[in-house]
Amino acid sequence: MSLNCVFIGAGNLATHLAVALKEEGVGTVQVYSQTERSAKKLADKINASFTTSPEKVSGSASVYFVALKDDAFQSVLPRINFNNKLVVHCAGSLPLSALDSYSANTGVLYPLQTFSKERVIDFKQIPVFIEANSDKNRSVLLGIAEKISDKVTPVNSARRMALHIAAVFASNFANHCYTLADEVLKENGLQFELIRPLIQETAMKITELSPFEAQTGPAVRHDHQTIEKHLRFLSGDKELSELYKTISKSIFSFHKK
Amino acid sequence: MSLNCVFIGAGNLATHLAVALKEEGVGTVQVYSQTERSAKKLADKINASFTTSPEKVSGSASVYFVALKDDAFQSVLPRINFNNKLVVHCAGSLPLSALDSYSANTGVLYPLQTFSKERVIDFKQIPVFIEANSDKNRSVLLGIAEKISDKVTPVNSARRMALHIAAVFASNFANHCYTLADEVLKENGLQFELIRPLIQETAMKITELSPFEAQTGPAVRHDHQTIEKHLRFLSGDKELSELYKTISKSIFSFHKK
Repeated sequence: MSLNCVFIGAGNLATHLAVALKEEGVGTVQVYSQTERSAKKLADKINASFTTSPEKVSGSASVYFVALKDDAFQSVLPRINFNNKLVVHCAGSLPLSALDSYSANTGVLYPLQTFSKERVIDFKQIPVFIEANSDKNRSVLLGIAEKISDKVTPVNSARRMALHIAAVFASNFANHCYTLADEVLKENGLQFELIRPLIQETAMKITELSPFEAQTGPAVRHDHQTIEKHLRFLSGDKELSELYKTISKSIFSFHKK
Repeated sequence: MSLNCVFIGAGNLATHLAVALKEEGVGTVQVYSQTERSAKKLADKINASFTTSPEKVSGSASVYFVALKDDAFQSVLPRINFNNKLVVHCAGSLPLSALDSYSANTGVLYPLQTFSKERVIDFKQIPVFIEANSDKNRSVLLGIAEKISDKVTPVNSARRMALHIAAVFASNFANHCYTLADEVLKENGLQFELIRPLIQETAMKITELSPFEAQTGPAVRHDHQTIEKHLRFLSGDKELSELYKTISKSIFSFHKK
């Protein structure tokens, strides 16, 4: 049986996923997005038709991938007739049961990665987590996931939530630390460029060490003299100095344990 | 004139620096460290003699590199006779003037990188910041720095402090975010391994985008529903949930500006 998909949503995740599927021979017949521009852009990329009306979503595909913002589920999905086909969402923090009212056949395919329009990513290296409401659906979804990724793991909804939270810390929050560094540099007439090698090495270190072992800096060595100097230097910026204190305190307490 | 060095300190930074210098033909005659084991270990690596007594540090080298913890300066340096030779410290958050009482010729060579014993690093790619108390000393130091790094920049003490603080945010604090992620994963029976590709991609993204542009996640898209879910999930761990809140708030306020 040849698979064909419909994509509900046309953002970064939908785009990377649809393109990766197409490259492995799993075509998409239709793309839905609220905005015509996004819908058309993705549809053109993968030779699909597109619609901006949930009512016009085709009922004849074999799999529906829902890659909407979490709060759009309830406004869009009730208006689509899925004909009880396999409906799969891609969200880290939504349980499988979020799809219960829309189809008798449901699943989750959650790729743990940060997607941006600008960057090409090797999907094969992305850990993909799947869940489904029956053995049959799990087996279909596993077949699809293993076409695009070499790292497919079944997890339940609670563990997927833990993965999503871990991703928020390791990616979103780490990236915000880069932004704060950029802020300090800018305020002192220095280029972000200068700390890029340091950022890359910090991310590479944890391929060989645990992040606990890899921790360096004034907080982990309890170098209060340096911390005081830094806080004096930052004293004009309440937000930066408060964050400096809070995160340093957290490092103290983690490395005391 | 052929240069030769003495290293005061034998930690990670001293080791990486002394080895890089040796590879470029700048030899070290002697290593001082408080502990014999560290002193001998570095000395053996670079064919130098070693001592654990500040009074026995040779007075005949051309350059002295001080790579001690900041708070060891005052206990060790007054006991060394530097003969007014060029004395260079490697600390981000100490001013050049910290060396004033020990020699008439002073400098700073600050490599902006996180060093660990276990990892080999290409020193040529490391941004190195220098400062000196005279044109002559700056020129000597520049000559040395440019042998080991392709990215040498003169900066004053205030800007070097800003660089160090930026490094704390971008490296030490980002790494602590990895540790917190690891904590969430462990508590839910999941391997850190799973989020390594995400961490690497997060660090690679900012080679093409500014970290401000690269920001993703529930906080930057004001997805309060997901944030609430995450906080409920973390509610058993006060420390993790407080940090989640604080950093999310900081993301809100940065991306409102």
